[in-house]
Amino acid sequence: MFEQMNGKIGNWLRAGGEEPSVVLSSRVRLARNLKGLTYPIYADNSTREQVVSFVATAIEKSPLLESGGFYRSAEVNDLDRNFLIERHLISPEFIQPESPSGVYIGTDEATAIMVNEEDHLRVQTLGSGLSLSEVLKRATGIDEELATTLDYDYDTDFGFLTSCPTNVGTGMRASILIHLAGLVLTKEIDSVIDHITKLGLVVRGFYGEGSDVWGNLTQISNQTTLGRSEHDIAESLEKITRQIIEFENKARERLVADARDEIADKVWRAYGILRHARVLTSEETMNLFSALRLGGALELFDRVPLRTINELLLLTQPAHLQKYVGETLGASQRDVARASLVRERLAET
Amino acid sequence: MFEQMNGKIGNWLRAGGEEPSVVLSSRVRLARNLKGLTYPIYADNSTREQVVSFVATAIEKSPLLESGGFYRSAEVNDLDRNFLIERHLISPEFIQPESPSGVYIGTDEATAIMVNEEDHLRVQTLGSGLSLSEVLKRATGIDEELATTLDYDYDTDFGFLTSCPTNVGTGMRASILIHLAGLVLTKEIDSVIDHITKLGLVVRGFYGEGSDVWGNLTQISNQTTLGRSEHDIAESLEKITRQIIEFENKARERLVADARDEIADKVWRAYGILRHARVLTSEETMNLFSALRLGGALELFDRVPLRTINELLLLTQPAHLQKYVGETLGASQRDVARASLVRERLAET
Repeated sequence: MFEQMNGKIGNWLRAGGEEPSVVLSSRVRLARNLKGLTYPIYADNSTREQVVSFVATAIEKSPLLESGGFYRSAEVNDLDRNFLIERHLISPEFIQPESPSGVYIGTDEATAIMVNEEDHLRVQTLGSGLSLSEVLKRATGIDEELATTLDYDYDTDFGFLTSCPTNVGTGMRASILIHLAGLVLTKEIDSVIDHITKLGLVVRGFYGEGSDVWGNLTQISNQTTLGRSEHDIAESLEKITRQIIEFENKARERLVADARDEIADKVWRAYGILRHARVLTSEETMNLFSALRLGGALELFDRVPLRTINELLLLTQPAHLQKYVGETLGASQRDVARASLVRERLAET
Repeated sequence: MFEQMNGKIGNWLRAGGEEPSVVLSSRVRLARNLKGLTYPIYADNSTREQVVSFVATAIEKSPLLESGGFYRSAEVNDLDRNFLIERHLISPEFIQPESPSGVYIGTDEATAIMVNEEDHLRVQTLGSGLSLSEVLKRATGIDEELATTLDYDYDTDFGFLTSCPTNVGTGMRASILIHLAGLVLTKEIDSVIDHITKLGLVVRGFYGEGSDVWGNLTQISNQTTLGRSEHDIAESLEKITRQIIEFENKARERLVADARDEIADKVWRAYGILRHARVLTSEETMNLFSALRLGGALELFDRVPLRTINELLLLTQPAHLQKYVGETLGASQRDVARASLVRERLAET
């Protein structure tokens, strides 16, 4: 299953949009529930099945969702489930084969709709770089189209109702995935995160928290879903993101001014290792590619296009690797296969 | 000065001879003194000058030493002095410009004669790989030729007399420079060194003691100079060396059998770093090249010929680097120049 995605990346990782050297991607997700039906966590299988049917029908009728596929959880095996998690299309909690659920995935992977995760629907749209307003526009469009078929649980005082009270109101979470290597290296990251948190945003490490400096991709998202419009939430996140980008760019400038040789050396060593290693763990790979990403942004390195870096960050994850080679691999076999894939792809650039 | 050697290696590093993947080089040196003249350590400058003149004349008359040059210490500046030390042609204690001394260097650097180091003469011959008998033959030939002109201090009971009693007798030190990476990695090195020491040989780390495992080049030489013939000393060292080579080869076989992927990974990473780093310290460079050397011997790596590895081990040393770029460089400038030279040379292979 999902062979059309195997060995490729979704649109949102193609290093397009604004500020792609700092912001990897922008994302909006809307939580929605259907009136009169028990919410997923407490629902029995027959209710869950009913929800899947309703949503599948609504998706089928939606012109905006024409080019994509709907997959029921029973069809998706463990490897494919992890494959979709690695592609950020479903959450780790999602798709338990024993209880009815499903996921719609748009052809370009810019849209995904989880059915029966924490809420009946989680409409998610993704875009490359800083592209929140475009991503929000798509989410809203899809949401409105689905609302013509589905009867959402909506309260005139509170707005959209959700399983978890933190999502009530707009049901919206807007987030960006951002690479703050400069701020990490200049050791200013903590004060910047402090600043962001005080502004009411949530900051999370993404590809593995506690990982080495280079690999530190950060996700920033809104906390508040109540009392503000979707547009306001996205606009406020975008504004703060632009401020962070400015901090990051200043940190990068200082790095080049103060430690050009040292940074260039680290970046080129990372390339040398990726280009020739025979064994690569997932974590090291991520750190090394993050070094290349920073090197490219600082114009110290031009051997590997940003798009290839994003692509390999995705394709070297465990499930992707196994889909790619077409067999189940243990951890140490994966490390060998990962190194081999990276060598192959980098030899082409 | 010494421009003919700049950017090149001496014959003894050309990875020829027997067992070049384990034994880098073989060396014999003979300590000799002239009868009736104070030994260098206690000699005044006029005596030292006299010795230099005598030896220079003898060298000029020796057909075996025809193709080479004699250099007086006053002519040799600090950089060139370090350059000759790095090439193993003179010792660190040698050539103090203020007191007369000199060195003869054969065109192929297979022969060097220090005048007024610890003894009046130190005749040294070098050969690539395991080549002790050939190297001894050359030393003896030169020694005999010089003896037709020079009057050596010789005692019928003790043999040749020398400044330090440990050299009395044959005045000979035979040594080999050997790369025991396999034994280091299998952690058998200590028991092998113990064994060698008990056989009456001296073991010394060469390129920096206490360095990382990969860089560990070891020098093994005879301790005894008295009571045995030159031929016996060389033969005994050669025999023990062949035993050590056998131990080393067995260790290497085990490494490939037990940890092939891991070793290959280390070797190729070393190559990746050498190929792309922007900053390389002398010590790291040595360690990385030692990894390539082992990788080649284990047939896990074939990108860089052994001769190039030996060459770069020599040329990346501080004085060589400065001769090569033609200017004085501070330590951090050297690290950048070193990385640049290594990249350049490896790109050619």
